[in-house]
Amino acid sequence: MSELTASVAQLIECLTRLPGIGRKSAERIAYHLLRVSKEEAFALADAIRAVKENVHHCKICFNLSEQETCHICRDATRDQTLLCVVEQPQDLMAIEQTGAYHGLYHVLLGRLAPLDGVGPEQLTIRELVERVRNGTFREVIMATNPTVEGDGTALFISNQLADTGVKLTRLARGITPGSVIQFANKEILTDALTGRQVL
Amino acid sequence: MSELTASVAQLIECLTRLPGIGRKSAERIAYHLLRVSKEEAFALADAIRAVKENVHHCKICFNLSEQETCHICRDATRDQTLLCVVEQPQDLMAIEQTGAYHGLYHVLLGRLAPLDGVGPEQLTIRELVERVRNGTFREVIMATNPTVEGDGTALFISNQLADTGVKLTRLARGITPGSVIQFANKEILTDALTGRQVL
Repeated sequence: MSELTASVAQLIECLTRLPGIGRKSAERIAYHLLRVSKEEAFALADAIRAVKENVHHCKICFNLSEQETCHICRDATRDQTLLCVVEQPQDLMAIEQTGAYHGLYHVLLGRLAPLDGVGPEQLTIRELVERVRNGTFREVIMATNPTVEGDGTALFISNQLADTGVKLTRLARGITPGSVIQFANKEILTDALTGRQVL
Repeated sequence: MSELTASVAQLIECLTRLPGIGRKSAERIAYHLLRVSKEEAFALADAIRAVKENVHHCKICFNLSEQETCHICRDATRDQTLLCVVEQPQDLMAIEQTGAYHGLYHVLLGRLAPLDGVGPEQLTIRELVERVRNGTFREVIMATNPTVEGDGTALFISNQLADTGVKLTRLARGITPGSVIQFANKEILTDALTGRQVL
């Protein structure tokens, strides 16, 4: 569009690459940034730079951290015998927010997706197996997403850990609080029936 | 949230200030930026800086420009006797995209909104009146938004320009192509009836 100045066009182009940002949203954000003070716009630019420069993966569990190891791995009060395996740091955060878990984590940084060319070597599975073999864990909780790929990843890891003698569990599945049974799909109801609990 | 590293928390905070970006979207964008290459993330940071450093308002019409005057004001082939008054540069761009207008523009950089403390002196109304008085315009088209505030702004400007002898017009109003009359609201139908056109 010839009407846009080069800088604005370039900014809109960069913004549309962000997840959930279409052309119209990118334009709205660009004009917002044009309107706000230099300080506010630069704060965002600097925050983006800072994140890429400061944030790395914890060398033990691969959670995000600005130090060598993350605050969870450094926390000696956490249950060192429980390990929860998640796909992404966001999953770890969601579980942390429940306050219901006080063990350690292992972040895979993805899930097995052969069709997308993601094999075990692209994830942190080797490090996980080593950690479990050399560690003092009594239970490993598979908290990968309840999708075909997440389940496949959990199964693959279970096989790798089968001979360690560590107890392997996965997150419970069933109907969700607030949901309506008549609208639950086949898979949800099958999970709920198969895993039915004694009252 | 103690689970976020300081840099990530800061980035999410900055992102939620953008229009249309809530907490969840900000988190998704932050993790996206953590995942992409340094080059891609820095390109966005640099584009934000560039926009604030390079883009200014045209000193004639207040459109966005990276030079003293914008490409429209510099374009001698445009009809120098027609002036279209819009609220924001985005409005100008929307009109340009129709290809149906070939005159000049004046960007108010807002609309009169007494309740928000926006008076005539916060807009470029003084410059507009001067421009019309000293210029060779035969028609000024008010293309402010069809809202209470947009209409009020157009009315205020009309009063200011009443004694210049320049023809004052506003955008036509009525039913929109593709709309359904039974669902059009009272205001739309009133506009359509009042402004009915000879077939």
